[in-house]
Amino acid sequence: MKLTVIKIGGNIIDDDGRLHAFLEEFARLDGRKILVHGGGKVASEIGRKLGVEPVYSDGRRVTDGQTLGIVTMVYGGLINKKIVATLQSFKCNAIGLTGADGNIIPAVKRPVKTIDYGFVGDVNRERVNMEILNAILNAGLVPVFAPLTHDEQGTMLNTNADTIAQEVAKALSKDWDVQLIYCFEKRGVLMDATNDDSVIADVTAADFKELKEKAIISAGMIPKLENAFEAINGGVKKVIIGHAQELQALCEDKAGTTIR
Amino acid sequence: MKLTVIKIGGNIIDDDGRLHAFLEEFARLDGRKILVHGGGKVASEIGRKLGVEPVYSDGRRVTDGQTLGIVTMVYGGLINKKIVATLQSFKCNAIGLTGADGNIIPAVKRPVKTIDYGFVGDVNRERVNMEILNAILNAGLVPVFAPLTHDEQGTMLNTNADTIAQEVAKALSKDWDVQLIYCFEKRGVLMDATNDDSVIADVTAADFKELKEKAIISAGMIPKLENAFEAINGGVKKVIIGHAQELQALCEDKAGTTIR
Repeated sequence: MKLTVIKIGGNIIDDDGRLHAFLEEFARLDGRKILVHGGGKVASEIGRKLGVEPVYSDGRRVTDGQTLGIVTMVYGGLINKKIVATLQSFKCNAIGLTGADGNIIPAVKRPVKTIDYGFVGDVNRERVNMEILNAILNAGLVPVFAPLTHDEQGTMLNTNADTIAQEVAKALSKDWDVQLIYCFEKRGVLMDATNDDSVIADVTAADFKELKEKAIISAGMIPKLENAFEAINGGVKKVIIGHAQELQALCEDKAGTTIR
Repeated sequence: MKLTVIKIGGNIIDDDGRLHAFLEEFARLDGRKILVHGGGKVASEIGRKLGVEPVYSDGRRVTDGQTLGIVTMVYGGLINKKIVATLQSFKCNAIGLTGADGNIIPAVKRPVKTIDYGFVGDVNRERVNMEILNAILNAGLVPVFAPLTHDEQGTMLNTNADTIAQEVAKALSKDWDVQLIYCFEKRGVLMDATNDDSVIADVTAADFKELKEKAIISAGMIPKLENAFEAINGGVKKVIIGHAQELQALCEDKAGTTIR
């Protein structure tokens, strides 16, 4: 049976009008579906007002204890419930989740090597709780994941939304025909970063190697594609990267870049 | 089949040590169970730091738009996920919910009569979504409700935790043998408010009338007991009022005040 896992990033979360339009389109999509949302700027804004300045180590954002409290309340409360309530208004029976709920996504606090990222969780992929997630899907519910996991010892952990989408999609591939859709602010992988119409329709592993070697794709696109191939290698049928405003077309394979 | 609905108030939420001890005991309880938590002081503290002063109308707290955002993130995110993560650490498979999740508790924004309470929800009791709640319980999950509902039109609403506990308990009474436990900072209904050992073991409707007439019970106790009788009239088998530190004994009818 077909299942679509869709990830939206912070840029949509930050824009009420676009978020509303996106959720209306998401609600209309046929079939089983899961939404994974990123964080957006509101956590940093609220953090600053609360006197919590972003912490960086070696140029990378660190989740210290105070920041963990802020992302837990903003991602898991404010944003997640706004999305759930909005989807409910479109008659989509959403249920907001973090990785702690139902112990669906156990994680481990990232080990300190050169950088201590603080309360950041690496998903324990062997233990993603398919049984509970299937029970929720089979009850007709639409899971909406905040980018949070937990360590099973009482601590929430901050986890990248792209990673959550990928891990959930891979785990579900055992029981479902999964397509994974990454929505962002571009129409797909572009041949020419300055031309929004230069979308590459399909990217194979060989293409990706060539695109990297010829430096055609932008640096920011490389981790997205690596993530996509990792999902494919993990059993996901196809990954589509495209613009949030073309959701329906992305789902029907009529827009964006498809990775198989 | 037996099901226990337990409500804890803000005074436990505000005390990390007591909350932890309570959740450890809750996790150990046998059988199906649901936890409903109140708010505590942290929402007001965070609100003040964000420059949102509590709003009162005619002496009653009002949930304006900014306050709604704060309670959504604090109750639905910070507190709810802290409880869920802690229960998971005790191997209790908790799932955090608001009334918006799964559309379990639809509500209506309280109509303005003399006071405009703002974004406060009155539970639409005919429509509490038993089917979804049963599916969650039957998946072996332990629902943990934050004191939030929604209006089904995209807006979250602030709702009293005692009311949520009562409405959920009544709705579940159609399918389950429900006992409802209100935990607070006293050992039960007291004959003498200054003597913690003067717990009245059982209160019938006739007793309640007499206790009120003779002014034996304190003013604060009256709405709790009215709430309890309303639950009983709605099909709940028994209601127990007692101290959070005696949870196991309350569940076994060995402590607190029982209303049947």
